[in-house]
Amino acid sequence: MSHTKYAIGVDFGTESGRAVLVEVATGVEVATAVYPYQNGVIDEKLPIPGKEIKLEPDWALQDPQDYLRTFQNAVPQVLQKSSVDPADVIGVGIDFTACTMLPVKADGTPLCDLPQHRENPHAWVKLWKHHAAQPEADKINATARNLDQAWLDRYGRKISSEWFFSKSLQILAEAPLIYTAADRLIEAADWVVWQLTGEEKRNSCTAGYKAIWSKREGFPPDEYFAALDPRLEHIIDEKMSRMIYPIGERAGGLTPQAAGWTGLKPGTAVAIANVDAHVSVPAVTVTEPGRMVMVMGTSICHMVLGSEEHVVPGICGYVEDGIIPGLFGYEAGQSCVGDHFAWFVENCVPASYERQALARGINLHQLLEEKAARLKPGESGLLALDWWNGNRSVLVDVDLTGLLIGATLATRPEEIYRALIEATAYGTRVIVEAFESNGVPVTELVGTGGLPEKNKLLMQIYADVTGREIKVGASSQAGALGSAMFGAVAAGAAAGGYDSIIEAAQKMAHLKDELYQPDPENTKVYDRLYAEYLRLHDYFGRGENNVMKTLKQIKSEGIHE
Amino acid sequence: MSHTKYAIGVDFGTESGRAVLVEVATGVEVATAVYPYQNGVIDEKLPIPGKEIKLEPDWALQDPQDYLRTFQNAVPQVLQKSSVDPADVIGVGIDFTACTMLPVKADGTPLCDLPQHRENPHAWVKLWKHHAAQPEADKINATARNLDQAWLDRYGRKISSEWFFSKSLQILAEAPLIYTAADRLIEAADWVVWQLTGEEKRNSCTAGYKAIWSKREGFPPDEYFAALDPRLEHIIDEKMSRMIYPIGERAGGLTPQAAGWTGLKPGTAVAIANVDAHVSVPAVTVTEPGRMVMVMGTSICHMVLGSEEHVVPGICGYVEDGIIPGLFGYEAGQSCVGDHFAWFVENCVPASYERQALARGINLHQLLEEKAARLKPGESGLLALDWWNGNRSVLVDVDLTGLLIGATLATRPEEIYRALIEATAYGTRVIVEAFESNGVPVTELVGTGGLPEKNKLLMQIYADVTGREIKVGASSQAGALGSAMFGAVAAGAAAGGYDSIIEAAQKMAHLKDELYQPDPENTKVYDRLYAEYLRLHDYFGRGENNVMKTLKQIKSEGIHE
Repeated sequence: MSHTKYAIGVDFGTESGRAVLVEVATGVEVATAVYPYQNGVIDEKLPIPGKEIKLEPDWALQDPQDYLRTFQNAVPQVLQKSSVDPADVIGVGIDFTACTMLPVKADGTPLCDLPQHRENPHAWVKLWKHHAAQPEADKINATARNLDQAWLDRYGRKISSEWFFSKSLQILAEAPLIYTAADRLIEAADWVVWQLTGEEKRNSCTAGYKAIWSKREGFPPDEYFAALDPRLEHIIDEKMSRMIYPIGERAGGLTPQAAGWTGLKPGTAVAIANVDAHVSVPAVTVTEPGRMVMVMGTSICHMVLGSEEHVVPGICGYVEDGIIPGLFGYEAGQSCVGDHFAWFVENCVPASYERQALARGINLHQLLEEKAARLKPGESGLLALDWWNGNRSVLVDVDLTGLLIGATLATRPEEIYRALIEATAYGTRVIVEAFESNGVPVTELVGTGGLPEKNKLLMQIYADVTGREIKVGASSQAGALGSAMFGAVAAGAAAGGYDSIIEAAQKMAHLKDELYQPDPENTKVYDRLYAEYLRLHDYFGRGENNVMKTLKQIKSEGIHE
Repeated sequence: MSHTKYAIGVDFGTESGRAVLVEVATGVEVATAVYPYQNGVIDEKLPIPGKEIKLEPDWALQDPQDYLRTFQNAVPQVLQKSSVDPADVIGVGIDFTACTMLPVKADGTPLCDLPQHRENPHAWVKLWKHHAAQPEADKINATARNLDQAWLDRYGRKISSEWFFSKSLQILAEAPLIYTAADRLIEAADWVVWQLTGEEKRNSCTAGYKAIWSKREGFPPDEYFAALDPRLEHIIDEKMSRMIYPIGERAGGLTPQAAGWTGLKPGTAVAIANVDAHVSVPAVTVTEPGRMVMVMGTSICHMVLGSEEHVVPGICGYVEDGIIPGLFGYEAGQSCVGDHFAWFVENCVPASYERQALARGINLHQLLEEKAARLKPGESGLLALDWWNGNRSVLVDVDLTGLLIGATLATRPEEIYRALIEATAYGTRVIVEAFESNGVPVTELVGTGGLPEKNKLLMQIYADVTGREIKVGASSQAGALGSAMFGAVAAGAAAGGYDSIIEAAQKMAHLKDELYQPDPENTKVYDRLYAEYLRLHDYFGRGENNVMKTLKQIKSEGIHE
């Protein structure tokens, strides 16, 4: 009798790592374990006992040992909880926040683990939300425009301060000795796969979305890097690699050391690394063009597959094989969604509402959702621009700010709350329409992440505003499930896994039964409100009235006086 | 030895009537008493025991007997409290909210006091904030434009639904039998003077500001009224009067009956009636051009005197002799000031702030003022349009709504609070500049009302934004003091009073020692922010982008579906 086979996915988040053990044939999630990082997000001072090494504002670091501790803690836990025989675990996949990168020696040792570098903040992992490299990003963009670099078009004509070369250039600029001491600069995603397998194999997803790589054109030319800084001319060959491996491949087998950490068998297949958002796409059944996946949490990441290459102005980027091999993976984003509502609840909801919620044993979000759900579209007379944290797509402008219009003395908190939800829905519709009008069809939406679990009103509003059906992924941990699916693909059909992620998705990925159908009456009203949103969007977002930037300018002058 | 002389001012407010007994020589306020109206603001059902006669939304009525009860209660109280001999009270003046009007019989009996009319809401007093006559106001304005009526220019080209003919036309339209039964339609201000003196003498202030009368041109022509409605053709001669008495004159002497109500001597001089805001102008020492008085409470009424006649687009109106005899009295207004902050505190301040305020034994306004005072101009990055209750001057548009721009995830409640204060200050600056650019100089501001007593931060911001010094009236009851001053003028110098309001003001009116000087550094920043405010003001307020009205339109369609 053949044993049931399992795969393990490990999802490296911002605050913790999560392992899930999944039945390969069905996708059933048998056991889950979470390891909260011992050193969490390092944004005030380095975690060195007895030392006071403070960080500048906007810094965000991590400790690479926390990733290894995730393997040492969470993986044994899922084995123990499930009582599964490690011999029946055929593959492991991982996904990571990105760009989260670190400098290491040629043998993989992180510089921050070497005593001579440990007290230098640049020796540590720069987390995705390390935002201190904006001057470097500005230089990268200006230089690219000067040299007329065609690849800019692939990234909405703007490289983010969060991305790989912005962070690398910051190391060079502020800590040249660290830059010199680093034999390799590497995504944490690829570094953990290296630690599991002994093989430095860099994945196509982070390379494509975060490091300006494409399958057809490779990296930007050395002349471009030389123009940025002469010392950077050979960064690709000296500190990185031109060998980029497509997601869906096997990176290698578990080393005996990694087998010891995890309790798994040496040689267990390990997949090429992936990114948390992107790995969720097949985990919610999407492996074909036309169905846009939204990972909906504090922000939204929108991903859609296309069979053709199209430049879509204002999106984050597109990468061939970046999500599903054989297709172009397009990514866009909204920088402030769940964060928006959290800000509102913390700052703008009166004590009388808190008392109501308390008396009913619900939280403020639930109370507001309930009250807001009683309103009809347009009933509040409010309209907002959802730019409390800038606009990622399609305006790509961090200096835009939030706007609320239509307030009267009768305006109530739940009306503002609903207007903020609606504004983020209009923001998603702008993205959907940008894709469609540039040749990338979007026929259906699939939601995953925290918000679809928590806020049905929001989901219905998104369906009504976009006029599209929204389905929801069945798993509440799509990242980890997706990684497990890639683990099963790394193992291959012969070992009881799958030969492609498409096959894996057919068996292991599921949707919830519930879905959100647009209500045509609501859509009709929202079409009119969206027209007003668009007009304000363009007026304030495309330079006709730069008041948002003028206000920021006046603010910064006052602060630096 | 000559006795000290006194005058009594009675200020009829929205919720209560207030009497103050004042020393004529000095303006010292010797005693004050307040009578809370038994029937208050009648906005749900008529106060008839055993009857359920409900009112439509937007209705607001009063009971004329409450005015008489004010005389019967508050005046005897101030006499008693002060132990002043009634023989030493030389004059009585009254001021009133306006337009507050009622239908009466030829002998002055209010129709609502007659059993056959008592159950008809149109028989009662229509309070200033009765807002149910908008269709009638629309008709008045459209007809005036059609017939090219020049007097429209005196009122910012728009007659308000709150004013005399809007309310009269509503009676005619909805209750023609009441209209027919009414021998007189009269301002409550003039009706109470009639009750005191037995003389129906209508004042120039309400006639000018609320009933389209001017000293030079009188009322609109009968043809205009006929065009409105044939039954209205002779409204002036049939229901009103062409005899209009300038403020500052003596209306008559107290009748024995009124002397009985009040405890004063029969024959005591009674002044022609006045309006609460306008009577405050001399009460804060202003009797000459150039110094603008702001009555600052839930809304702001701006009044400035001019020696010449100028059409100022968008103001509420101007009336020759309307405030001070011999001068043109210009009036403008902002419809939402204190109301704005009350709305904000009720709806938008989190429980954590309430707990802070409670722990410190202060109220939320005080806490917010304290926190907001620590911010520098421009520091929040926020800008607002102060149109939560429409815009009275200079856009004269009730359908405009509030706007907030510049919000980020770091925006705090006190920043929004300060932005709302600043927005109302910009609104005042627009009014000041409208006067100045149309030939009516404004060199200094004088504040009175509730806000100057309560919010020093607001006063400083107004000084900084307008770049003008602000002084504050010494009395916290400028309306009642001003009425007492007019009472002393009605008595005349021979009786121990004064022969003109200018003389009365020199002796009886005072300013506080404290004043608010604009800080040139702040004014510099506010000049830049004001430029941005003005651009948004014109963009949203003058028709370039009508989104506020579109939102209201969508809202009203949804409600009436």
